[in-house]
Amino acid sequence: MTHDSNSPACRTINHLLQRIGDKWSVLVVMTLSEGSRRFSELRRQIPSISQRMLTLTLRNLERDGLVSRTVTASIPPRVDYELTELGHSLKGPIGALSQWALANIETIHAAQDRFDRVHDAATAA
Amino acid sequence: MTHDSNSPACRTINHLLQRIGDKWSVLVVMTLSEGSRRFSELRRQIPSISQRMLTLTLRNLERDGLVSRTVTASIPPRVDYELTELGHSLKGPIGALSQWALANIETIHAAQDRFDRVHDAATAA
Repeated sequence: MTHDSNSPACRTINHLLQRIGDKWSVLVVMTLSEGSRRFSELRRQIPSISQRMLTLTLRNLERDGLVSRTVTASIPPRVDYELTELGHSLKGPIGALSQWALANIETIHAAQDRFDRVHDAATAA
Repeated sequence: MTHDSNSPACRTINHLLQRIGDKWSVLVVMTLSEGSRRFSELRRQIPSISQRMLTLTLRNLERDGLVSRTVTASIPPRVDYELTELGHSLKGPIGALSQWALANIETIHAAQDRFDRVHDAATAA
């Protein structure tokens, strides 16, 4: 079987995996899985993210339909973010992948160390 | 709860999601899930990949312990690639994510179109 990397299904899967693979997306989705949050709350709960990256990440997640944005007219205006139904449905598959990663973290690190030792030795020889 | 993006577990998950999120990795893992392949066979089955990208992708997958590389002394030497046990165990979680993406492809495209219409209109106004 030949694998066509340009089929619409394949491109959507790649787009999603790349979105999910982005560490800020994972952290934002994880935080919002606990409930809706205001922009300032998200910044507080993910201290390492910059204002610009948080804005960009939320915009991308909103564009894919995973996060919804609600503006409440007040002074100052209040903006809340929460997972959509689609966003919530992604928690299962993402959770399975994260659990796999956690369960195999030692095996992967050992493989990386072994690979680097062999290849460093080959370079030094 | 504050999410620390620098914990070892979080970094490993991100590393893996980024590796898996790479479209060439997905295509190579999908192809190898059908059985072991020689380099030239992989190139034939994934026509859009360049020799350089295939070399790099296989090297990264080997470093993470997901793919093994066997050299058989012959003229010319024969090199076979196959999924390791760890690589095979990743098929379940990746399959779940791919199925989620396939099941929701229409919803995601509709969300993207809606978002772009609203934001293009706002830009044009």
